[in-house]
Amino acid sequence: MAALSLFLDVPLTREVNWLLDAYQEDPSPDKVYLDHRDCQTEMGKAWVCPTVRQTLLQIASDPTLDHEYLPVLGFPEFTRAATELALGRESRAVIENRLLLFSTLLTSSLNGALGGVSSSHENDTMKKSQGHRCVLDSLRCIFQDVGFTEIQPYHYWDTVRLAVAIEGFLEVLESAPDCSIVVLHAPEETGLTPKQWEEVARVMGRKRLFPFFDIPAQGLASGDLDRDAWALRHFVAQGFELFCAQSFSKTFGLYDERVGNLIVVARDNETLVRIRSQLQKQVMGMWATPASLGARVITTVLNNPALLNKWKQSLRMLAEKIMLIREKLKEKLRILGTPGFWDHLTAQSGTRSFTGLLSSQVAFLEKHKHIYLLGSGQVSVCSINSHNLDYVAQSINEAVSSTEGRAQGLSWAEME
Amino acid sequence: MAALSLFLDVPLTREVNWLLDAYQEDPSPDKVYLDHRDCQTEMGKAWVCPTVRQTLLQIASDPTLDHEYLPVLGFPEFTRAATELALGRESRAVIENRLLLFSTLLTSSLNGALGGVSSSHENDTMKKSQGHRCVLDSLRCIFQDVGFTEIQPYHYWDTVRLAVAIEGFLEVLESAPDCSIVVLHAPEETGLTPKQWEEVARVMGRKRLFPFFDIPAQGLASGDLDRDAWALRHFVAQGFELFCAQSFSKTFGLYDERVGNLIVVARDNETLVRIRSQLQKQVMGMWATPASLGARVITTVLNNPALLNKWKQSLRMLAEKIMLIREKLKEKLRILGTPGFWDHLTAQSGTRSFTGLLSSQVAFLEKHKHIYLLGSGQVSVCSINSHNLDYVAQSINEAVSSTEGRAQGLSWAEME
Repeated sequence: MAALSLFLDVPLTREVNWLLDAYQEDPSPDKVYLDHRDCQTEMGKAWVCPTVRQTLLQIASDPTLDHEYLPVLGFPEFTRAATELALGRESRAVIENRLLLFSTLLTSSLNGALGGVSSSHENDTMKKSQGHRCVLDSLRCIFQDVGFTEIQPYHYWDTVRLAVAIEGFLEVLESAPDCSIVVLHAPEETGLTPKQWEEVARVMGRKRLFPFFDIPAQGLASGDLDRDAWALRHFVAQGFELFCAQSFSKTFGLYDERVGNLIVVARDNETLVRIRSQLQKQVMGMWATPASLGARVITTVLNNPALLNKWKQSLRMLAEKIMLIREKLKEKLRILGTPGFWDHLTAQSGTRSFTGLLSSQVAFLEKHKHIYLLGSGQVSVCSINSHNLDYVAQSINEAVSSTEGRAQGLSWAEME
Repeated sequence: MAALSLFLDVPLTREVNWLLDAYQEDPSPDKVYLDHRDCQTEMGKAWVCPTVRQTLLQIASDPTLDHEYLPVLGFPEFTRAATELALGRESRAVIENRLLLFSTLLTSSLNGALGGVSSSHENDTMKKSQGHRCVLDSLRCIFQDVGFTEIQPYHYWDTVRLAVAIEGFLEVLESAPDCSIVVLHAPEETGLTPKQWEEVARVMGRKRLFPFFDIPAQGLASGDLDRDAWALRHFVAQGFELFCAQSFSKTFGLYDERVGNLIVVARDNETLVRIRSQLQKQVMGMWATPASLGARVITTVLNNPALLNKWKQSLRMLAEKIMLIREKLKEKLRILGTPGFWDHLTAQSGTRSFTGLLSSQVAFLEKHKHIYLLGSGQVSVCSINSHNLDYVAQSINEAVSSTEGRAQGLSWAEME
């Protein structure tokens, strides 16, 4: 045997999540992490929808349960129920049979979909990617992995006004190359109004931009599943071809089962047959067939009216809890007399929030307060709980008061 | 909206499994499918290890069960127990801390591993692939998907002698470019003797060929877990760097949970740190973290001595059943006076068997008997059961008797 390793030239890549690593290595007892990917409970555990436990037990007790391979594109019952949830029962695409449904592994839904289509190497219009929020490094990785070279981040949030920057967003769309893919991540949480979405759809339709919806938390922004799906349904109603990656991790609290659904809306059924063949080929090389237990749990809940109601109720309660945390934080900052305006905390909704903190203030929080959040100032709202609320508010107050630069959240009046 | 689909140029790819499709479309009530990927029971259902049901119920009943994301590389308890099963507790690589363990999604274990390493684009020696059984189209797809362009199938089975073709296999290895990857699929089922494996290891070591073991059915060839792992353990003991993709689908009958483990044995621990960083990056873009319930079931069984014993006993029983099917088929063909020799059916072991049928005979079976098997004559032994055994044997007899060409299974004496 030769003495040198065959892996001699394999380089070390940077750590995947330096923020979490830094938090975990911090020995301070006061440390707080504000970038959880899951919705945390008061006890700092991932929230699990109570219906999940009951349903899983019921499935495991079923003597007829087998463990055969699922079809390559997953349970038809699952993908159908999931899609109805996203598009609604009366969707034009459903009625016209222009839907391809595809059980996925979350992250992989993007990867698989992009790979499936771009691997044909004949659809050059799809090779350019315009899009996605700059905070989402993982999205960039996924697009890069499947060979996209032109990837542009965009912003829909005005960091000065601390509000949706619809004009800037429309400008980005106008200047994108025709037929670019636009990743619309968490449309339910962006805070765009229906009227603003209509404007976005008009520009995208005119420039033939391809919408790739990514829906991680339907129901957790407004507490209402239909309301949170408004943007997606509007695009479908307008006749767009699109992809929609749908996740159930947050809404069921089932993070460890990787249950997702990819919805492909195409112009006609003949087109879908060709897309399906590409996706199947891609899936065969990646994971062959999806895992089943998580999808079984979700299918059971979605198809049982009593369980469905219980689940919807849990979602509403979780959405209300999230809004309450936003309100409490805003109130604490008001009482502390923190410079700036903080109405944007409650003007937004959903699991993630722009705080409006500057990167220097974020650095202050990490260095002096052992509080870890993204440099953009975005936090996971559920990472704040009754145990750390006072400390977080007090620390934000200190960060804003002590760092140089403008005060937070100039009011609209000051901006005009 | 423009009228033309953006997917206008996406081509239709050929169907993924034309054999299964042809079988499913065949309206004949006599039809038999002999290429199941799973181990079938007498009732034509996928065999499930009885321990699985009990363990899954126990896990679902656990009130402390949470559903948080698993670590990117999976449960440490799972990967450790799985690796001990493959390498043994006393493995040199374990003792010397030269192992990286990595919970995977089966197919993806290959894809992830190859992607992780080849994505560095600095390890050119790894970019050439030599190997894998030609019947395994899916392996070819996986290697192609991650950018391997030189892929050569090899044979270790002599279709004339109907026995292991060790000389031919060694010649292939000798003529392979140095540092090629050699996929050693299902070594437990190839029928190579320890002495032959030693010879294979010697050639591969001299030419610095990289072994990528793929172990889908440890324990199902001989009924003994240790004996079936002999080849892998020999390579590790010889100091090879290697990858080993380990699957639990067949051995637990848990096909729908996609539980796999990738074992990376490297020269030293420092090398592993670099490989781990590449694999983590790859996983983050593909499936982020693995699904958990299947891995929890297997971990529980492997770490509980009573359950472990029950599982080992089930494996032995299944292995014995497989050997019994082989013996029955051979006996039926003998009674029918089928031309040729059929000892190779019982000289092989494990879930898959070369029948020695010629492609013309395979075509005869499909066309006239509605029996579907691979063109190479390979079958899944468990696809034969008491309901179809007589029909299959009778049909093989007719195929061999009526088609032109040489009789099957020339005896060794005739060959010399």
